[in-house]
Amino acid sequence: MLVVQKYGGTSVGSIERMQKVAERCLATARQGHQVAVVVSAMSGETNRLLDLTRQLHDDPNDREVDVIVSTGEQVSVGLVALAIRKAGGKARSFLGHQCKIVTDSSFARARIVSIDGQPIRDALAAGEIAVIAGFQGVDESGNITTLGRGGSDTTGVAIAAALKADVCEIYTDVDGVYTTDPRDVPNARKIDRISYEEMLELASLGAKVLQIRSVEMGMRHGVPIHVRSSFSDAQGTWVVPEETDMEKVVVAGVTVAKDESKIICEDLPDTSGVAGKLFAPLAEQNISVDMIVQNQAYDGTTDLTFTVPRGDRKRAVDILKASVPDLVGKNGERIQSDDEIAKVSVVGVGMRSHAGVAKTMFQLLANENINIQLISTSEIKISCVIARKYAELAVRALHDGFGLSLPPSERTGL
Amino acid sequence: MLVVQKYGGTSVGSIERMQKVAERCLATARQGHQVAVVVSAMSGETNRLLDLTRQLHDDPNDREVDVIVSTGEQVSVGLVALAIRKAGGKARSFLGHQCKIVTDSSFARARIVSIDGQPIRDALAAGEIAVIAGFQGVDESGNITTLGRGGSDTTGVAIAAALKADVCEIYTDVDGVYTTDPRDVPNARKIDRISYEEMLELASLGAKVLQIRSVEMGMRHGVPIHVRSSFSDAQGTWVVPEETDMEKVVVAGVTVAKDESKIICEDLPDTSGVAGKLFAPLAEQNISVDMIVQNQAYDGTTDLTFTVPRGDRKRAVDILKASVPDLVGKNGERIQSDDEIAKVSVVGVGMRSHAGVAKTMFQLLANENINIQLISTSEIKISCVIARKYAELAVRALHDGFGLSLPPSERTGL
Repeated sequence: MLVVQKYGGTSVGSIERMQKVAERCLATARQGHQVAVVVSAMSGETNRLLDLTRQLHDDPNDREVDVIVSTGEQVSVGLVALAIRKAGGKARSFLGHQCKIVTDSSFARARIVSIDGQPIRDALAAGEIAVIAGFQGVDESGNITTLGRGGSDTTGVAIAAALKADVCEIYTDVDGVYTTDPRDVPNARKIDRISYEEMLELASLGAKVLQIRSVEMGMRHGVPIHVRSSFSDAQGTWVVPEETDMEKVVVAGVTVAKDESKIICEDLPDTSGVAGKLFAPLAEQNISVDMIVQNQAYDGTTDLTFTVPRGDRKRAVDILKASVPDLVGKNGERIQSDDEIAKVSVVGVGMRSHAGVAKTMFQLLANENINIQLISTSEIKISCVIARKYAELAVRALHDGFGLSLPPSERTGL
Repeated sequence: MLVVQKYGGTSVGSIERMQKVAERCLATARQGHQVAVVVSAMSGETNRLLDLTRQLHDDPNDREVDVIVSTGEQVSVGLVALAIRKAGGKARSFLGHQCKIVTDSSFARARIVSIDGQPIRDALAAGEIAVIAGFQGVDESGNITTLGRGGSDTTGVAIAAALKADVCEIYTDVDGVYTTDPRDVPNARKIDRISYEEMLELASLGAKVLQIRSVEMGMRHGVPIHVRSSFSDAQGTWVVPEETDMEKVVVAGVTVAKDESKIICEDLPDTSGVAGKLFAPLAEQNISVDMIVQNQAYDGTTDLTFTVPRGDRKRAVDILKASVPDLVGKNGERIQSDDEIAKVSVVGVGMRSHAGVAKTMFQLLANENINIQLISTSEIKISCVIARKYAELAVRALHDGFGLSLPPSERTGL
């Protein structure tokens, strides 16, 4: 097999941990596999470097910042290659410009355009472990770029795609993706297998262990991703193409987001173009709007409710007052907002073939006397906004109600 | 003018010092010059990185060490570029692989083969200050290489040669090259102009302020080098092609080396091939022999004396005992050695046209009752080995005797 292993900053956070990584790489190689390793900067290093740039410039040039922060991964690949050699293996490091990880020129948030896998394949064919710098690339002109926070996961999956690897193993400090956050729900279960689509919808769970862009890339190229702990040999969570078996599991996981606020615009004229007029100034100011719900008009007017990141709530209201006073009132008289909300969601590809998931979800919340303020649905997800004080209660009720604390085989239907 | 400025690790050792460097670059640019800047790693950074490698491996692979230590200069160029931008200038950083500083593949001690000046010229033409990483390059295969300690000076002069710059300014923490070490001789004078050849012979003085390889490169390409202080605007020392004026100054400087030992091999047969037989095993073990003096044979035998770095003296004797017992005796009976020596030298291109420098030197030493143990001469240098306890006295006597405490114009002949 050809195995790509990606180790995050915590996994390579010290000389001792790098030695552990080296041992694991070598153990995999000794099983007869070809091994390519993608590593992040040592934990804390990227922040240290960013801090240096900010001491010099309050708004540092992105091209130069990328030159600086990309050294974190450069040091890591050299050190991990040395650790593998010290442990008796053969290893060779690769930087973004050496295995031609070509990106666009969006410094600090570049997207991968192509990878030349040949130098890495040559090293693997020579019996070497290839140690590849995550997070970095070069644009067409040879400028160094970085992929944005968490970009090393994306590098890992992209390298796996370029090499047509059998698996991309993402090593992290937790042992997989759970049916919900185990800190909120002690009987949360580790998910053994999950589809790319579900993983994307479980972003709020997955973001802690797996960068969402890497899941999209895995889905596009069909790379099986195995999220697992760098501290044990236990199987973690496999993120894979949808399988027929998966439909039997109606709900794969329950998520909660507590970092959004709700904004309600009342008494809007029920005419065409109103929503566009309202959201255009927010988009221009880069405020990302999440749920948008508009009710049936009544008396020629309608209400429109949406959620934004909590930190953007005040700014969003100010922008609306300044941009569309005709819609929301000069002093925003027709705007209300609420920070005390939470969004609970249930996710599962099985929803496509199982009616009644929404009904069950609403029933489970009603059983706890939790009022639903907003509802939005996608093909494999149902989200409800509720009062924030009920967030944990709601998650537990949904998690247990959908049987997620049981092994998949023991879960009954709805 | 096109000015290349090179700043060492101390000059970029902190955020504040980088800001000073940025100001100086901008001041030069505002005088109407095009400016390319070569920078070292922040002081201490290279050692920090080397220490990391040694924690992992007692004999770390040179290719990977170069990947790691080259990040020091990479961080510096990004930060200096940011500092220049913050101060209101335009700047762009260049790494070894971006301005194609191609070297051979001798990791950790690579030699520059070629430089593609075009990307830098393009930046200069666009009104940008080019900030170039010292010390690093890439080999033909794109592997990162480093030039060895002090390699940033060499990068500076090589960049100046590639750009056909008018001057390469080497900024350091002293204000130039002196007629002798000012710590030994308080009335030592800063040298205003010196030839490449003299500078090379003054290595033991110059090494503290200017890497010898960079002088060789300057000589080969005719790059005027200006060694000056990064803490003042005063003129420093210009290292330039030999000028007719220089011949008037018979002696440019006096040096002393106190870190060598003398080894004497007595009663060697006066036959051909003896010297070769003696030095071959030393060369094989990488012991560098400096002065070699052999006297006229007498009674069919001869004595041969040479100097080696003091730290290699014991090893050298052991090697000779083991390799050529027929020449030196199985227990080295015919070897003597002496650590308590010093080598004083006078250097000057004027020697070529002025007879009698040697005579004056010997006379000056004799005046102080200093016995000369060994003498060796080159075209522009005379070296004498003396007892180490007389080293400082000898340097002062020579320095004053050749009038070096006076301005060049006031020095009389011999």
